[in-house]
Amino acid sequence: MTESFKASDLIITPATTFKEKPDPTGLVFGTVFTDNMLTIEWSLASGWEKPCIRPLENLSIHPAASALHYAVELFEGMKAYRGVDGKIRLFRPALNMDRMARSALRTTLPTFDQKELLECIRKLVELEQEWVPYSTSASLYIRPTLVGTEPSLGVKKPTKALLYVILSPVGPYFASGTFNPISLWADPKYVRAWKGGTGDCKVGGNYGSAIYAQQEALEFGCQQVLWLYGEDHQITEVGTACIVCPISKILYKGKHLDIPTMENGPEVTTRFLNKLTDIQYGREESDWAMLVS
Amino acid sequence: MTESFKASDLIITPATTFKEKPDPTGLVFGTVFTDNMLTIEWSLASGWEKPCIRPLENLSIHPAASALHYAVELFEGMKAYRGVDGKIRLFRPALNMDRMARSALRTTLPTFDQKELLECIRKLVELEQEWVPYSTSASLYIRPTLVGTEPSLGVKKPTKALLYVILSPVGPYFASGTFNPISLWADPKYVRAWKGGTGDCKVGGNYGSAIYAQQEALEFGCQQVLWLYGEDHQITEVGTACIVCPISKILYKGKHLDIPTMENGPEVTTRFLNKLTDIQYGREESDWAMLVS
Repeated sequence: MTESFKASDLIITPATTFKEKPDPTGLVFGTVFTDNMLTIEWSLASGWEKPCIRPLENLSIHPAASALHYAVELFEGMKAYRGVDGKIRLFRPALNMDRMARSALRTTLPTFDQKELLECIRKLVELEQEWVPYSTSASLYIRPTLVGTEPSLGVKKPTKALLYVILSPVGPYFASGTFNPISLWADPKYVRAWKGGTGDCKVGGNYGSAIYAQQEALEFGCQQVLWLYGEDHQITEVGTACIVCPISKILYKGKHLDIPTMENGPEVTTRFLNKLTDIQYGREESDWAMLVS
Repeated sequence: MTESFKASDLIITPATTFKEKPDPTGLVFGTVFTDNMLTIEWSLASGWEKPCIRPLENLSIHPAASALHYAVELFEGMKAYRGVDGKIRLFRPALNMDRMARSALRTTLPTFDQKELLECIRKLVELEQEWVPYSTSASLYIRPTLVGTEPSLGVKKPTKALLYVILSPVGPYFASGTFNPISLWADPKYVRAWKGGTGDCKVGGNYGSAIYAQQEALEFGCQQVLWLYGEDHQITEVGTACIVCPISKILYKGKHLDIPTMENGPEVTTRFLNKLTDIQYGREESDWAMLVS
């Protein structure tokens, strides 16, 4: 049995036809994908198969696969940035690998050598490097995913799984480079994470029910949910996945609370954003950045 | 836009090759499937397409489909029984349709006319009637499933979905017709349902994290998890899906609590089981049973 796949075993059969690369300024998040994907199959009987980089295509999944019924699934979100020096960087990718391995344990999916997966991802991004936008306000989003594929309706640890990684060029969160502060909807009616749950992992089950609350937030004119927990309405998290984001209003118990983030100019927010993007786009050297090529 | 599909629009192109029907006594739950499935596609733009009954085959799913990332998915579990009079019955199927519609709302998936879906399922079971085991201790398991299929990584209400139904012949829970009492593992470490969550629906996200606890229960020599909630360890539910099941032991705070279910003979358990199976297998008339054909 193979305990982990190895990047040195990669079988690379890349796409021979190529999609047109989009203008990064007009992109809707997560809707355009690159030409190739990474796939690695796992079974309880044989362990991990050799990793493959091959043309991105639909997956052929049995209708009884555990990912489609019992949310035996997890993912990560990372980015590759094209720096001002032309080099491509990942940002603290080892932390994503670490959380992914923890999510795998929690969902009874197989674990793997984190360094080997990171090296497979590096090779995929290297192959797709022309998809990393030539822009310091856009990036190539990386989506590692691990799903249970056993064709069986038994509620149990799956004996088959598929790890795959897809890439999607994404534009800036804030068009024209300016901050647009957002409103948050804070209602204790929905709870996202709780003691004894999976809030410390990045698993599909955390999202399925959250989308409903997100819809309701939009109906109240808010962009995001501020998740509350417990009798005393402790703040747990906001769903935003942007780097830094100023908040102008919180709708709580029917009242709009004004948050004066922007009133005296967004100094703190801007300082955080600049520091992080300086590292990501190679304007500042840091061991938080990992070179792809 | 089509608010609901209609059973009268069914396009039936059944399988022309047939799998061998297994001996129901040796079946592992949810591993054998019948020759055909029901599929109904939905999109925000066009609403529901016409329902199709066609050969069971793998689904072609985009690797970014929301079901695989965000658990935008739900299911139901029902059964068809071959009665002592040769007729095939469903057991209170309207309640499954009702919960399915509620689960769809909660996961931002499209709803439908419950009677139309039930009629589509009835027609599928009618077509596959030879798969309903000739046995009063086995049945044909029905798995309606609804998944988000939009190929986009945005965390939002999906604009594409697929409803499908697969069928699986299943054997008796208790081999040789006798009750085997089970042990439960009760540890407040894992929580399955909570206020503001999705415990009142049947959605994938409820299961992904539960499988881990189920694994741990097995390691402690227990068959199932007795789910606890809150500081005072309220009992919420057991994961068993059998009709009636006697419990002999509960492992709680490191101690085995003996439950004397079987000591004076399982009178109450047997009475419940007989009443329910009398209705399911047509030994007793009841409006809880719905004739398939």
